[in-house]
Amino acid sequence: MTIDIKDMMVIDALELSKWDRDFVVMLQKGGVTCVHACVGLWENARETLTKVAEWHRFFADHNDLVMAVKTGEDIATAKRIGKLGIILGAQNTSALEDELGLVSVFNQLGVKIMQLTYNNQNLVGSSCYEETDPGLSRYGKNVIAEMNRVGMVIDLSHVGNKTSLDTLALSSRPVAITHANPDWIYPTKRNKSEEILTALRDNKGVLGVCAYPHLINGAGTTLEEFCDMIARTADFMGIDHIGIGTDLTHNMSVDFLAWMRMGRWTHEIEYGAGSKENPGWPDWPEWFQTPLDFPNIVQGLSARGMTFDEISKIMGGNWYRFFDEGFKAQKELVTCVSLT
Amino acid sequence: MTIDIKDMMVIDALELSKWDRDFVVMLQKGGVTCVHACVGLWENARETLTKVAEWHRFFADHNDLVMAVKTGEDIATAKRIGKLGIILGAQNTSALEDELGLVSVFNQLGVKIMQLTYNNQNLVGSSCYEETDPGLSRYGKNVIAEMNRVGMVIDLSHVGNKTSLDTLALSSRPVAITHANPDWIYPTKRNKSEEILTALRDNKGVLGVCAYPHLINGAGTTLEEFCDMIARTADFMGIDHIGIGTDLTHNMSVDFLAWMRMGRWTHEIEYGAGSKENPGWPDWPEWFQTPLDFPNIVQGLSARGMTFDEISKIMGGNWYRFFDEGFKAQKELVTCVSLT
Repeated sequence: MTIDIKDMMVIDALELSKWDRDFVVMLQKGGVTCVHACVGLWENARETLTKVAEWHRFFADHNDLVMAVKTGEDIATAKRIGKLGIILGAQNTSALEDELGLVSVFNQLGVKIMQLTYNNQNLVGSSCYEETDPGLSRYGKNVIAEMNRVGMVIDLSHVGNKTSLDTLALSSRPVAITHANPDWIYPTKRNKSEEILTALRDNKGVLGVCAYPHLINGAGTTLEEFCDMIARTADFMGIDHIGIGTDLTHNMSVDFLAWMRMGRWTHEIEYGAGSKENPGWPDWPEWFQTPLDFPNIVQGLSARGMTFDEISKIMGGNWYRFFDEGFKAQKELVTCVSLT
Repeated sequence: MTIDIKDMMVIDALELSKWDRDFVVMLQKGGVTCVHACVGLWENARETLTKVAEWHRFFADHNDLVMAVKTGEDIATAKRIGKLGIILGAQNTSALEDELGLVSVFNQLGVKIMQLTYNNQNLVGSSCYEETDPGLSRYGKNVIAEMNRVGMVIDLSHVGNKTSLDTLALSSRPVAITHANPDWIYPTKRNKSEEILTALRDNKGVLGVCAYPHLINGAGTTLEEFCDMIARTADFMGIDHIGIGTDLTHNMSVDFLAWMRMGRWTHEIEYGAGSKENPGWPDWPEWFQTPLDFPNIVQGLSARGMTFDEISKIMGGNWYRFFDEGFKAQKELVTCVSLT
């Protein structure tokens, strides 16, 4: 009996792709229920408003196919009515600038996930690429508390080691790493150490395993190798604390790649997770070329011997539970508890 | 039988006061259900975010007394649970800058009312104080259509004659004048001509009569005179198209008065609706010193011979109906119609 991806709730915890109607149709054909879409990398508050406005227009123009997701209930609705749910999130806290009150403002605008830092040190903390990570700043600690209060999910994917550990110790709520892999399987600065992933597991957080070629073994990585990594990571994290975050970069331009890596902070060429020898967008494995290929991951996990329930959890069930809880404001959680 | 303000839904369609806990308590003691509070005068997009953030903090800090209002249903809830409802609105479209997409963004942030212009010409149109009002700009026409689409109420209180007439001709939905009086009763540039108010009546809009001393006959205006104006205005507009918009400026500083009148656009002293002889905040009539005095208006209208139903409409019933409809997105209205 083959396992059908359409019978699952499939959530991709990060995509950075060029969003157009064709891309949405491909995601739906690929069986995807909901995507965390990147609304900013280096943008400040004003620039992020423009990005949010562009998303409003996308939602209005493609209202028959997509819907904005701000709650777990929205994800369930998207699955039920057959629309693609889109969660907006920023891969940086640059939109907050130095203003604590903007956490609540961007939360109201549906920016339900924020990565504390992108590739550089910022007002909140530091990144996996900085030489020294001093940990959460004084402001950063306030940002953590405020994100916890309003129900904005903290993402540590590109965040440095000390800032991540500080956050995992401080956060009163579970934390996400939406797109990274264990560094003992694929050693890179962007992948995560046993220390971090142990702390994430203890925090009841979720790790999204990532197909971005520079975070695995390049385009040559086989589906079997990728699914073996997932299985080993599931063994380590526990089957309830792992999901998918492909970091898919479909149809993105080279200009965007430059913005992604260099922002406005350098005049020198930066390669990010790439290298001088491999300066452009990486080639993706043949089994994950477009969103049409999501079913391949399901088949790969099935071939690895996983059950429908295990695969369902990994493909989206865990993110669904995590986001359903994580997107609620603290006071809603208190109400829920007092009602039970 | 005396008429009790507590038996009505009371909505004040504009206040510019210093918001603190004492002020909220006074409004509640005064019988007020809901207030349209000013979130900006000259502020650009970024600055308006800070204002919205300050309101989020106010809502959180005084959660036991106040609630944010984004729908008519919220107003009904505020009345039912005994909280003061607060509608955020800007007295300018400066927050939109030149970006049409920000209408939808600020609407999502609960800025449910925007006055097209404050006292000066802007990107959208022109003001009652400019020498020549060329009418709605090309951008302004797009802003009208977008406000109509998302369900952000258009306010013409400080707007110039031609821009107002253009808007009343173009808007597919009823428009508000939240705080102004008929200029044939109190002649000032800020009050409205018969031509404008006729067009507003035809548009099924609502006019909020205003107690701001410079828009009546100063602090010496008696309650009887004020209520006589209300009655004559109700006769002109029809009893379903008139409300209250006090423009109350409780405890505001002289620094704020300078910002209100001069923004960043002049280095010369500007007096707005005031004058060289009367440069500070005006004195208010003895019957309307604080929000505790709202019941005086009810008693004045009752003494003028109005019924409970008529007074209820004027004190908030009409704004409730207008906002309930006006705050809905166009597509929600279509759904309502198709359901009936």
